[in-house]
Amino acid sequence: MDKIHHIAIQVKNISDSVEWYKKNFDLEVSYQDETWAMLNFENTSLALVIPEEHPYHFAIETGDAELYGNLTKHRDGTASVYIKDIDGNNVEMIKLDGNE
Amino acid sequence: MDKIHHIAIQVKNISDSVEWYKKNFDLEVSYQDETWAMLNFENTSLALVIPEEHPYHFAIETGDAELYGNLTKHRDGTASVYIKDIDGNNVEMIKLDGNE
Repeated sequence: MDKIHHIAIQVKNISDSVEWYKKNFDLEVSYQDETWAMLNFENTSLALVIPEEHPYHFAIETGDAELYGNLTKHRDGTASVYIKDIDGNNVEMIKLDGNE
Repeated sequence: MDKIHHIAIQVKNISDSVEWYKKNFDLEVSYQDETWAMLNFENTSLALVIPEEHPYHFAIETGDAELYGNLTKHRDGTASVYIKDIDGNNVEMIKLDGNE
């Protein structure tokens, strides 16, 4: 079965939201800067993003992301492309090793 | 660490969307009626809901959901309450055994 790599929600201030999520939940902050943060839960991750940078979305791991369009490479080595489902929901097709 | 039980996105027609997700991804349909469906991925689940029934949200498993408000019991034995993060994002605090 495919895996859901992360969910991304929009927040106004990354630092304030990281504090709120840390206070309320048992999670691990794996990355944080002023424009986004990645919070690891036991089974998947929650990305906090600001509206100017990313839409609301969820990401599905796939080795064949390039079948869905031109991939954008990210600094962490992953590569991905956004698609939309039939209702316009954003789905990020993400390849963990973008250099493959 | 806490677990993300499911993510829920809004769709217009449950049946059409289940077909789209089945065609595009390797997943298991664990429940489906005309008002919602639950699609199991390897590590978490994606709920398809209609706007009249549920907001966009994600659900976090917790044994202490009642600390966040009065729980609503569901037919599958779970019980939950919706809260909002500091930006108004909907978080469902879900207790798997709502009869505990």
